[in-house]
Amino acid sequence: MNPLPALMWRNVGIYHIFGANTDVGKTIFATALCRAASALYTGHQTSYLKPVSTGPEDEADARHVKRYATSVTTETLFQWERACSPHLAAKESGQVMQPVPSDDAVLAKITSHVSAYASSPGWLFLETAGGVHSPGPSGTTQADLFAPLRAPVILVGDAKLGGISQTISAFESLKIRGYDVDMVLLLRNAEYDNHVYLREYFASGLARLPVETLAPPPDRVDGDGDRARMESYYESATGEIVKSKILSRLEEKRKARMARLDSMAESASARIWYPFTQQKLLTPDKIAVIDSAHGDFFQILAPGSSPSALQPAFDGSASWWTQGLGHGSSQLSLAAAYAAGRYGHVMFAGAIHEPALTLAETLLCRLDNPRLARVFYSDNGSTGCEVAIKMALRASRVRYGWEAREDLEVLGLRGSYHGDTIGAMDASEPNTFNSEVEWYKGKGYWFDYPTVECSGGEWTVEWPEAMKRDGETGNAKFASLSDVFDLGSRSRGQDVEAYRRYIRGVLEGLKATGRKFGALMLEPVALGAGGMILVDPLFQKTLVDVVRESPHLFGQDVASTTQKSAQSWSGLPVIFDEVFTGLYRLGRFSSASFLHTHPDISVHAKLLTGGLVPLCTTLASEAVFDAFASDRKTDALLHGHSYTAHAVGCLVAVESLGEMMRMEEAGAWDWAKSNGWTGGDVRVQSAKDGDRIVWSVWSADFVGQISRNTAKVTGTWALGSVLVVKMRSKDGAAGYESNSAAKLQEFLRRGDGTPSFIVHSRVLGNVLYIMAGQKTSQETVEGIQKLILEALDV
Amino acid sequence: MNPLPALMWRNVGIYHIFGANTDVGKTIFATALCRAASALYTGHQTSYLKPVSTGPEDEADARHVKRYATSVTTETLFQWERACSPHLAAKESGQVMQPVPSDDAVLAKITSHVSAYASSPGWLFLETAGGVHSPGPSGTTQADLFAPLRAPVILVGDAKLGGISQTISAFESLKIRGYDVDMVLLLRNAEYDNHVYLREYFASGLARLPVETLAPPPDRVDGDGDRARMESYYESATGEIVKSKILSRLEEKRKARMARLDSMAESASARIWYPFTQQKLLTPDKIAVIDSAHGDFFQILAPGSSPSALQPAFDGSASWWTQGLGHGSSQLSLAAAYAAGRYGHVMFAGAIHEPALTLAETLLCRLDNPRLARVFYSDNGSTGCEVAIKMALRASRVRYGWEAREDLEVLGLRGSYHGDTIGAMDASEPNTFNSEVEWYKGKGYWFDYPTVECSGGEWTVEWPEAMKRDGETGNAKFASLSDVFDLGSRSRGQDVEAYRRYIRGVLEGLKATGRKFGALMLEPVALGAGGMILVDPLFQKTLVDVVRESPHLFGQDVASTTQKSAQSWSGLPVIFDEVFTGLYRLGRFSSASFLHTHPDISVHAKLLTGGLVPLCTTLASEAVFDAFASDRKTDALLHGHSYTAHAVGCLVAVESLGEMMRMEEAGAWDWAKSNGWTGGDVRVQSAKDGDRIVWSVWSADFVGQISRNTAKVTGTWALGSVLVVKMRSKDGAAGYESNSAAKLQEFLRRGDGTPSFIVHSRVLGNVLYIMAGQKTSQETVEGIQKLILEALDV
Repeated sequence: MNPLPALMWRNVGIYHIFGANTDVGKTIFATALCRAASALYTGHQTSYLKPVSTGPEDEADARHVKRYATSVTTETLFQWERACSPHLAAKESGQVMQPVPSDDAVLAKITSHVSAYASSPGWLFLETAGGVHSPGPSGTTQADLFAPLRAPVILVGDAKLGGISQTISAFESLKIRGYDVDMVLLLRNAEYDNHVYLREYFASGLARLPVETLAPPPDRVDGDGDRARMESYYESATGEIVKSKILSRLEEKRKARMARLDSMAESASARIWYPFTQQKLLTPDKIAVIDSAHGDFFQILAPGSSPSALQPAFDGSASWWTQGLGHGSSQLSLAAAYAAGRYGHVMFAGAIHEPALTLAETLLCRLDNPRLARVFYSDNGSTGCEVAIKMALRASRVRYGWEAREDLEVLGLRGSYHGDTIGAMDASEPNTFNSEVEWYKGKGYWFDYPTVECSGGEWTVEWPEAMKRDGETGNAKFASLSDVFDLGSRSRGQDVEAYRRYIRGVLEGLKATGRKFGALMLEPVALGAGGMILVDPLFQKTLVDVVRESPHLFGQDVASTTQKSAQSWSGLPVIFDEVFTGLYRLGRFSSASFLHTHPDISVHAKLLTGGLVPLCTTLASEAVFDAFASDRKTDALLHGHSYTAHAVGCLVAVESLGEMMRMEEAGAWDWAKSNGWTGGDVRVQSAKDGDRIVWSVWSADFVGQISRNTAKVTGTWALGSVLVVKMRSKDGAAGYESNSAAKLQEFLRRGDGTPSFIVHSRVLGNVLYIMAGQKTSQETVEGIQKLILEALDV
Repeated sequence: MNPLPALMWRNVGIYHIFGANTDVGKTIFATALCRAASALYTGHQTSYLKPVSTGPEDEADARHVKRYATSVTTETLFQWERACSPHLAAKESGQVMQPVPSDDAVLAKITSHVSAYASSPGWLFLETAGGVHSPGPSGTTQADLFAPLRAPVILVGDAKLGGISQTISAFESLKIRGYDVDMVLLLRNAEYDNHVYLREYFASGLARLPVETLAPPPDRVDGDGDRARMESYYESATGEIVKSKILSRLEEKRKARMARLDSMAESASARIWYPFTQQKLLTPDKIAVIDSAHGDFFQILAPGSSPSALQPAFDGSASWWTQGLGHGSSQLSLAAAYAAGRYGHVMFAGAIHEPALTLAETLLCRLDNPRLARVFYSDNGSTGCEVAIKMALRASRVRYGWEAREDLEVLGLRGSYHGDTIGAMDASEPNTFNSEVEWYKGKGYWFDYPTVECSGGEWTVEWPEAMKRDGETGNAKFASLSDVFDLGSRSRGQDVEAYRRYIRGVLEGLKATGRKFGALMLEPVALGAGGMILVDPLFQKTLVDVVRESPHLFGQDVASTTQKSAQSWSGLPVIFDEVFTGLYRLGRFSSASFLHTHPDISVHAKLLTGGLVPLCTTLASEAVFDAFASDRKTDALLHGHSYTAHAVGCLVAVESLGEMMRMEEAGAWDWAKSNGWTGGDVRVQSAKDGDRIVWSVWSADFVGQISRNTAKVTGTWALGSVLVVKMRSKDGAAGYESNSAAKLQEFLRRGDGTPSFIVHSRVLGNVLYIMAGQKTSQETVEGIQKLILEALDV
């Protein structure tokens, strides 16, 4: 999708006119509004646009408007002769004459016409066809089709018998797609008085919007008399509109909305305490005011000098790595609303409801890990990781017969990050994020490890100093990323022995010091907040293997009840924090599959709800679960949040996962899989297609190309929807404290010179990353690739 | 509202028939379905119920059904002569004959009729009037009116021009109220072929439901020929229904749903890891299977022997203290859907959106605390409390010039509880919840304090041993709870001096040991998870006062930049954890108002979103905020969750708070305020009405009455929507490990002998509490009071 600015212009009042049904008088109201605007706002331009029209051209709505509101500019963008739903008319016509326009084409044409009208002050009414959900030319219903335009709505209600119902339902269909409905207008009908009921209804609740009426038009008669009677009707209808101040109230609302947008950055700067932000450095002009979002794009307030108040910006951090199905997905919106309507939140201790059970079953089934048997719910990755740690430490404590107050530690990787609550922080080594935090105390040992990057056009695995022995350079080159991930072949090579030797050496050294470890905790494949580091998968797998083979290095099994099944853990419980890397972020349902190994505990959040609401799941094996079984209440895992397994989050997750699984099955990412990545013939054991290859939406060529810009880029990698560019640091600072990626970020934010394409991204010190959503199109990805190449050329 | 079981019976297929519009053929389909059911399911009873009907009685739908499906039982519950919307018909008629039936009356009559039909196997079709949102007799639209019945829906679509839109919108209006739509049926119309489009539309997305059609009925003609043609039409329509297996598919779905409900407890027992639960003690029969919820009531799976599969259970823990506006509020549901549709989740660092800013402004304004200036968002009370601690410790560290790695502690109250993440746990003294948790390490000093209870009919403030000096009994009696809270008068009494002396003594002793404290952290008024303890408000106020007056006891101010404004903190930053006690739970917007004091940091969650989704806000003063200001990124508060300030949560919170504020203004709790509580004349300085009196929905008489049952009850209290009953422990164990409240809980769960009223409650050891929602009716509260009195008599 080509990103378009939403229709908010500083000078022009732009409104969708939607109807609660067909034949409710949309064109009557449009005409009367146009006449009134022309009369009241002299010197302003009043325009009428009918994007999609069906029926004989000489009866077209635009003609009617022009006839009775003569000073108005009118236009019809797509017209089909047959009087039926546009999707049928366009299809029939498409077979003989012109192709059916795509949704993007319709939107682009509207936007371009609006730009032409919108330079000078005025009013613009966009009349839809039929009811809110009448299909547009492609078959997409108009409520969905026009949602990205985000103009406020004048809803023409239904005055007929049954019209109350039609009007409220139409309002709700618009509302759940994020439309702002500014006013309901309808014709008066003395028999049903729908407007009386609707006025009261819409005055309360979420709506709080005004309902106004016009007298019904005269019945149509043939001949010239018709025109005169209509002229006189509009004369009086215009008077009604003026009298009830409809236009000035709309204008007031519009101005208030604009003023609010203009003041939000200042207000936020004064009132909000931002997460992860040194606010002394965040001046209001740097705050992105987000009016709305759709698909991959935010609509951000443009500088005050721009006549178009909003500009689209690609959500380049996938909204802190959460986005999957795009912003404003009506599918997720409806799922959230259904769960809210059916349950609200229902307390979870000792209770069960369908969304929570189905989600648990889906994860247990689809993670395809025979060790996992239990699902614990919490609210975010950080709490989910704390839960994982509590689970693992208890299991180890019981197994090895340690005391409750013993100082237990975790094993992990240098630079790991598991969240911001103290327990999750304590599982990470001292670093930028925690060194200044009161109460933080790192409790663990964190290994060095070999990293993977594309550098100077070559895929390289580089060993840390600690691992190298005499004469070893610790630099291996690979023909492709797939070859790096080909653990089947590599496990027969020399690397694995070096890895084993190093890991075993460290563990033996630790045992000698008497330190006690209760868990091995890893972010599989890639470390996120720690700097977007791609870890050699062979190392991670080897680490898991060695820990499992070496229970004698951790303690002595005193738990006589320990079951020695294939599902029981050995050495230490292994925790995979897949919060960032799992659920298709790297292209596969589970990132554990890249490592050909199964954790005992697995944490999942972020993409879990497709980018809508917070939710986290911590899955564990029955052996870990059993460590809490006792006759004493207080031996239980005494952790739980009020909104544990809230129905809204669970159902949204069920929908999100379902949709991504359907996409995978339907080959939605085939274009990316054939993006230059699958040169190697990497096959793993799993039967699932997605688990057989290593791929990214960012093309292999593109990644190679930027990696060859060695003057600016020290390394890069891409996997799934993630692209990472590590900039050469010029400011001396390293890591998070560096500002070397800021220039690239700034270029992307400024765009390519046109207002149509900018990228809102996040940096981690000298690392810039771009994360697409799971529905981002090839076209959009290619646009961003082009922009990045330009930026690196500057 | 009198709780009713939702309409799911083991033997009978019960369906709402809703129409996408008026005049779409609901009665045609009902008749054909009835005929087909009679033909296919011989020996079963087929019934047709028209709850609300308008128009001449001899043209009534039930008559039509009876005429063409002769073996069917038909009934109309409410009939009005005039052919218009029921709300108009009922109103007109109400003026001359019978009163307009309330929603509860309509539901009760339906339920009672269904019970009569539902004893033997069969089918029952409930035909609504008009469209989904056509108003019922009271004016409530039918989609809202019938929502508590929760029967699955057959939606009759609209085959006419525009009918695609009407059908989809009607579906969405039902869906956001939690209806399960099982099938869409519509008449065929060759001109528009709506069914072709709708079949494809509903096959995908969230719906995934079948669309089936019937041929349209013959045009109506006068005379006897009409009847014969209709008879022949129904003959063939019945054939179509049989052929397309509509009934057997509905039945299959119904049986699958029932089988699922019957198996959920077992599945959950095997797959879910429950929060705060010793699962060894939780057998599947103890797991509540929640099919849905509405208002204050869960619909819980009834024992298999009951013909009605579901029974209503009062949500007596307010779903872990979160519920405010009731389950399934269509207002919150629509708010959630709008935010999802307009934003999804948009990343918050360095960005702002309307719901987050409006919520921040609302809280800052309405908390009415001049110290608070900033709002930080997180996901739940536990994370919000960690954030508060991080804020306070840093502020103290900067003020007193301590090192980053210094061991800082908090001051608090014995038995406080701030959440389950390690940082929040560390702020609580060692107790049942944390003593077995690895990594927990209490970091603080926790004061003893005087508690408040109604005991033996008298309100008593009882001092802890530590406070008593020679000859002091430390037991003060008060005429009313209002008198206990009359801090204006009490601050001139002797208690306050004793409190000051005790607190100062402790603080001086702590100073002598060299320990460093960085925060005073309190749950104002009442301690929640620590055992539902009502603390003497005078003590909490005095504690805050003494800490603020005594900076010399904590450190030496080295921060020359400290502003000495009224808003700056003194001594220690004071944190109020209002997660449980705030936002109307105790009857007031802020529970700080009971203490006549203002914290520097204030944490709010639970009721914040009215009981729908997780969200937490931590508010802080500018002086606390300034402690993080620096030119270094790493001095910032480096805390943040992916879904920080998610739009869905923020907008739902704006709506919830708005609704509760409107309720307060409109006097929605006046019945409770005149519930025997306001004998005293307790007035505080705030002008806001709600802040002037101490009251509860539980009547003062009732509280007195149970407190006089001293054989079973040691003490009790009520405030706002909270009722606490402390049972006399007979099992020797104390606190959380006690089981003495379990018997009372069991009685409430069993109900009063009829299936109509049971209470699902939670206990904390020997404490049973019942928490109403903010919309719970007086009638419901009185019903529960009655049940509790009966239980205590047993």
